[in-house]
Amino acid sequence: MTSHDPQHDVLQVAARARAASHGLALATRAEKDAALQGMADALLARSEELLTANAEDVERAESGGTPANIVDRLRLTPERLAGMAQGLRDVAGLPDPVGEVVRGSTLANGLELRQVRVPFGVVGMIYEARPNVTADAAGICLKSGNAVLLRGSSSARSSNAAIVAVLRDAVAAAGLDADVIQLVPGDTHDSVKALMRARGHVDVLIPRGGAGLIRSVVEESTVPVIETGVGNCHVYVDASADLDQALAIVLNAKTQRTSVCNAAESLLVHQDVADEFLPTVIEALQGAGVTIHGDPAFAEYDDVVAATDDDHAAEFLALEISAAVVADVEGAIDHIRRYSSGHTEAIVARDQGTIRRFVAAVDSAAVVVNASTRFTDGGEFGFGAEIGISTQKLHARGPMGLPEMTSTKYVVTGDGHIR
Amino acid sequence: MTSHDPQHDVLQVAARARAASHGLALATRAEKDAALQGMADALLARSEELLTANAEDVERAESGGTPANIVDRLRLTPERLAGMAQGLRDVAGLPDPVGEVVRGSTLANGLELRQVRVPFGVVGMIYEARPNVTADAAGICLKSGNAVLLRGSSSARSSNAAIVAVLRDAVAAAGLDADVIQLVPGDTHDSVKALMRARGHVDVLIPRGGAGLIRSVVEESTVPVIETGVGNCHVYVDASADLDQALAIVLNAKTQRTSVCNAAESLLVHQDVADEFLPTVIEALQGAGVTIHGDPAFAEYDDVVAATDDDHAAEFLALEISAAVVADVEGAIDHIRRYSSGHTEAIVARDQGTIRRFVAAVDSAAVVVNASTRFTDGGEFGFGAEIGISTQKLHARGPMGLPEMTSTKYVVTGDGHIR
Repeated sequence: MTSHDPQHDVLQVAARARAASHGLALATRAEKDAALQGMADALLARSEELLTANAEDVERAESGGTPANIVDRLRLTPERLAGMAQGLRDVAGLPDPVGEVVRGSTLANGLELRQVRVPFGVVGMIYEARPNVTADAAGICLKSGNAVLLRGSSSARSSNAAIVAVLRDAVAAAGLDADVIQLVPGDTHDSVKALMRARGHVDVLIPRGGAGLIRSVVEESTVPVIETGVGNCHVYVDASADLDQALAIVLNAKTQRTSVCNAAESLLVHQDVADEFLPTVIEALQGAGVTIHGDPAFAEYDDVVAATDDDHAAEFLALEISAAVVADVEGAIDHIRRYSSGHTEAIVARDQGTIRRFVAAVDSAAVVVNASTRFTDGGEFGFGAEIGISTQKLHARGPMGLPEMTSTKYVVTGDGHIR
Repeated sequence: MTSHDPQHDVLQVAARARAASHGLALATRAEKDAALQGMADALLARSEELLTANAEDVERAESGGTPANIVDRLRLTPERLAGMAQGLRDVAGLPDPVGEVVRGSTLANGLELRQVRVPFGVVGMIYEARPNVTADAAGICLKSGNAVLLRGSSSARSSNAAIVAVLRDAVAAAGLDADVIQLVPGDTHDSVKALMRARGHVDVLIPRGGAGLIRSVVEESTVPVIETGVGNCHVYVDASADLDQALAIVLNAKTQRTSVCNAAESLLVHQDVADEFLPTVIEALQGAGVTIHGDPAFAEYDDVVAATDDDHAAEFLALEISAAVVADVEGAIDHIRRYSSGHTEAIVARDQGTIRRFVAAVDSAAVVVNASTRFTDGGEFGFGAEIGISTQKLHARGPMGLPEMTSTKYVVTGDGHIR
C-alpha cells in the first residue's frame, strides 16, 4: 500500500486523519465514551492476537541481543493488556474538554464573546519502546476530539500494528471514522522526518521518549512541537528544614523509582546544616545503593565521587545523584538556574520568607514545597490521564491532561454589528 | 560594540536579557506601572530627538525610492508619539497577569496545588516598518514581566534605536534593569537568523508583518514561535440571512479598512438567494471601488473578473474580493476548509440550526455570527492591549493580550509528603 516516497505516504494518512477529524470534533461525549469502552473491550476480547503479534517483536528483540530491561518494556502480558483497557475506561470517565467555555463576556456594543475549547485537529505522536503508549495516546486523543497519527518504535512494530487494528475496528463499530487512529506508514527515520515536515497537515507533534529523540524533533520539526519530559530535578534542603522530613523526601525523590523524569537527580544543602545533614543523607543514600557525585564539601565523605560540571546537569535515571553545598537559598536558586532542565525543583524549609523567595525565583514547570519531586505527574495531580509532562513554556507546562490537548476558538455573536 | 559574529552578538544580548528578566519577573505591578508611565513621559519629553532620528529614516527611504505609503508608515509625528505614549499608559492601567492563579485544588493526600501565571522570560519580536511597534511591544512585554529583544525593520533603524534608548533610560530611572528592553544588534538577515537559532536563550519568538516574514520565521526558527496574523477571512451569506444586514456586513468587512488581517477577502452566497443578493452586493462593492474575482455565477455580472484558485486563497489587503455561490452551509464550510487561513469567518443567517452547524464546523481563531469580521481585534475584544493575532492553535489563538504573553507553573505545597 505504501509507495517509496515517505512524504507522500505521510501526507496521505494525514489527509485521511484530517477528513476524519472533522466528524470527531463534533462527536458528543456519549459517542466518544462508547468508542473508548469498545476499544477497551476489544483489547481484552482480542488479547490472543495481540500477544501473538507482541511475541514476534519480543523474539526479534531477543535474537538481536536487546538488553533484558528493554525487552521487558516491549513485552505485553494479559495483565498489561488489562491495564491498557482500564486506562481507556478511565479516560471515558473524565469530563469532555471540548466545548468548555474558557471565558466569555458581553462587549460594550452588545456583541457576545465566548472562548471555547476545540480539538487541535490532527496530532502526531512519536514515541519509543512501550506498546501501551499506543493505546494510551489513542484514547486521550480520541476523547479530546483529535485524530492521531502514531509513530512508535520499529522494535514494537508488530505489536503497534495489531493494537491499532483492534482499536480501529472498535472505533468503527462504535460508529466513528476508524481513520481517527492511524499508524504512520514506514518504519525508517524517513517517515519520522516526513511527519516533522507535514506542517499544515499535522497540527501538533508530541515526542515522548529519551532526550535524544526529543531534541531531534524539537530542532527539525516545522510542525509545532510540545516538548516533554527531560528532568534534572533538584531538592534543596534549607537551614530551616525539618531534617527528618528532608531525609525522607530526598530518599523518596531519588530512589522510589529512578527511571522517571520526576525523580531527583541533584541535591543541594544549605551550608549551615551541612555538618549535621551530610553524614545522615550520604549514609542513607549510599545504603540505598545510590552513587553520589559530590562537590568538594560532599567529596570529603567516604565513597562520594567528585562531581563534574556534566554531573550537575545530568539526568541520571539511575541510582546516582549529584550533590552540592550552597551558601543559602540564593545559592540554591543560582545553581538551579544554571543546571536545571526546568521540570521540577523542591525546597525543604520551614522559614516562610525563604520558601516564598524560592517559589518566586525558581522558574520550572513545578516548584514543590516540603514534598517529593515525584508528585509532578498527571495522575498525582488528579488529571486522570496524562499524555506527557511538558517542559516548555508555550501552550502547556507540566503534566498535560485532556484540556492541554485542545486549542480554543472565539465565537462572536451579534445582530448586524459593523465597525 | 558588535563583533562580526551575529550569533555571538545575539547570544550576548540574550544573556543580558535573561539576567534582567529574573528581576522583572518578581517586580510588583506598582513598579512595572511606574516604569510604563515613565516610558510614556519620556517619549513626550524627548520627542525632538525621536523626530530627528525618524527624519533620517524617512529621508533614506525617500531617497531610495520607497513608495509613499511605506514612507508614511515609517513616519513619526507629534501625534503618533502621543499615541505611543497613551498606549503605554493604557497598558499600565491593565491588570497584571503575572501571579494570577489559573487553577488550584487540594489533592486527596492534602497536597495543595496551584497553577500560577509566570512570564515567559525572554521574548523576541521580529517586525516590519512601523516604529510604534517598538514602544507597543516593549510596553506589553514589560507589563507581562518579559524581557524583550526587538528586531525591527532596517528601514526604521534610527527611529528604533532612538525609541529604545529613551525607553531604556526611563526603565532605569524607574529602578528596573534597562536590559529588559534591548535592540537586536546588526541589521542584516544574519541577525534575524541568529535570533531564530537562539533556542534556550530566547523563550518565544513573535513575528509581526507580512506573510513572507511570518512563513520564514515559522519554518526556520528552532525557538518556539507564535504565528500571527495572515487572514483570508470569509463572509458567508446564508439563505436565511437578513439581506440588508448581510450587505452592510459585507461592505464593512471588505471596505472599512483594507490593509488589516481581519478584513474580508472572500464572499460566499447561498444559491437560493443568489438571484436576489448578487446584483445588490456586486453593485455596492463595485460602487466602493472593489474588484470582484468571481466564480462562474458571479462572473455573469458586468465587470466581475473570473476567479482563479489562487484568488480564492488570497489575502488581498486591497479593494479586491473573491466571491462564489455555494449550494448551502455545507458548501460554505467545505470552501472555507479548503481556502481559509484560519483567522476569522463570519456567517450572516437567521436560522439557528444553520448558525449552530457553521459555528461548530468552522475551525478558525474566530467565528463570527451576524457581525463584521473586523471585530477580531484585541481592542474590540476588550483586552486593552494586543501584541498580535495568533492564527496557530498552540498556546494562543486569536487576539493576544497580556495573559497570552505568560506561561504558568505549578506550585505544590506539602508537609513532608512522599510517594
